[in-house]
Amino acid sequence: MPNRPADGHATRKKRRRFTKPQMPERRHQSGGRDRPPPTEEHSSISKGVRGKLWLFGRHAVEAALLNPRRTSHQLLGTNEALERLDPDARARAPDVQHVERTDLDQKLGDHVVHQGLALAVAPLPSLSLEKACVDETDVANDQVGTTVLVLDRINDPHNLGAILRSAVAFNVRAVVLPHRQSAELGGATAKAASGALDMIPIVEVANLSRALDQLKDLGYWRAGLDGGAEQTISEAPAFDKLALVLGAEGTGIRRLVGEHCDLMLKLPISERMESLNVSVACGIALFGLSNMSRG
Amino acid sequence: MPNRPADGHATRKKRRRFTKPQMPERRHQSGGRDRPPPTEEHSSISKGVRGKLWLFGRHAVEAALLNPRRTSHQLLGTNEALERLDPDARARAPDVQHVERTDLDQKLGDHVVHQGLALAVAPLPSLSLEKACVDETDVANDQVGTTVLVLDRINDPHNLGAILRSAVAFNVRAVVLPHRQSAELGGATAKAASGALDMIPIVEVANLSRALDQLKDLGYWRAGLDGGAEQTISEAPAFDKLALVLGAEGTGIRRLVGEHCDLMLKLPISERMESLNVSVACGIALFGLSNMSRG
Repeated sequence: MPNRPADGHATRKKRRRFTKPQMPERRHQSGGRDRPPPTEEHSSISKGVRGKLWLFGRHAVEAALLNPRRTSHQLLGTNEALERLDPDARARAPDVQHVERTDLDQKLGDHVVHQGLALAVAPLPSLSLEKACVDETDVANDQVGTTVLVLDRINDPHNLGAILRSAVAFNVRAVVLPHRQSAELGGATAKAASGALDMIPIVEVANLSRALDQLKDLGYWRAGLDGGAEQTISEAPAFDKLALVLGAEGTGIRRLVGEHCDLMLKLPISERMESLNVSVACGIALFGLSNMSRG
Repeated sequence: MPNRPADGHATRKKRRRFTKPQMPERRHQSGGRDRPPPTEEHSSISKGVRGKLWLFGRHAVEAALLNPRRTSHQLLGTNEALERLDPDARARAPDVQHVERTDLDQKLGDHVVHQGLALAVAPLPSLSLEKACVDETDVANDQVGTTVLVLDRINDPHNLGAILRSAVAFNVRAVVLPHRQSAELGGATAKAASGALDMIPIVEVANLSRALDQLKDLGYWRAGLDGGAEQTISEAPAFDKLALVLGAEGTGIRRLVGEHCDLMLKLPISERMESLNVSVACGIALFGLSNMSRG
């Protein structure tokens, strides 16, 4: 049973009380099922790229080939890179073409670390928040965590990729992000994610505040990571179901998005530094919230 | 008093014993003072850039202007950015020139996020390992931690910058890196470091193995972060003085460098993910080793 507050911003005392098993009122009033999942509103085409994205780098290409939800069109590879490719991934590769390293430099750009591989793929099909966050088969599986990441405008592909990598590493159930103002779920993000882009459910939504409402209805506590918070992650109670919200560097979590959080948490860092890199902060929060004895 | 093993790789049991206060033999045999500090061997010119580097971005520029060890030559800024600059930093700026945003785009490159500011600086003067790691005035200051970071070939400026930022945030005493095969301590690293490049002692050494020997003589435990380790950071004992060693992504810590570590530690991540982004891993290790009750 999820342990959710009945409504709005709870005090610390109230929150601790609600972490004891009890029936949250609101969930059973609306049940999260009165509203259509917002992800059905937008198309499966990511960021206006119609039909084809190039992924590159060994881990990204292998993970895409091994992802049953991913449609691949063509694999370009140097002889050496194709030989080193995981045999299962290789067996699933369509239209394999042997190319020279310089061909890939030309196609992808000189500064791209492609490791001799490029895979043309379709964007992943869209996924509903409800399916990603409450799949009953997953709930029975201990390997899948009960934390969902909500990313408010992470528009640097290196940061988004590193976050996806941490999300898989710490058994995050799903990643929710707005389909505008986020880094493209394409080559640079996939490379930085080192395969994680094809290993974790990603829900692109039109409206993050609405998604947070829905997560509440699904039984999630919504905690924003914010340097101005009073409570550190070590002082936070244990959450049965947690939606961890991160904002963009510099601007942080948008006001309206923050208003849809139940509490704000900070990392215990020196006053000399205003903030951490957002992917570093995310990794620490995921580690800290899952590995520390708190209370 | 530092609590160091007498020699070589200690077992876990031995290490725990050595964390109790006692006199380490080796330190007082060689005392770390028989050898000249390796950093005196190389010049104060970083990476062949003779005399001038361009730093950009508000935090990087402000921190450089406020760093008494940094020589600045010229500040270029848009009217708006100069007005927003910290008054103390502005007062120290030499040769201030008002420019247009497009002038900076042209000078630094279109893709550089300069935030309207560029500062021409000299590379920081070199710093000896011994001075950075045992300064007695610092030891008396609780704000300065007893952890030193040792970075084996972190050659991506975004990662190096994010690591420096975490180092300041978690009160790391100093960062040690080889002056070859590391990202340049220039504009891109400084921007990603968000000021941290000018806020933490950085020791550039010719030979990392030798630096690790010296750190041992100075009373530091040397722990390498490695996915193949058996022990997690949560299982590690508390260290009085810790040199945390991180390797490059993909290749990890070099064999010879690893042989100069007393123990290896890993992060408790899912088997589904081979590794984390190196700056994320560094942040988690710094947080975990300083904030968790271990044993």
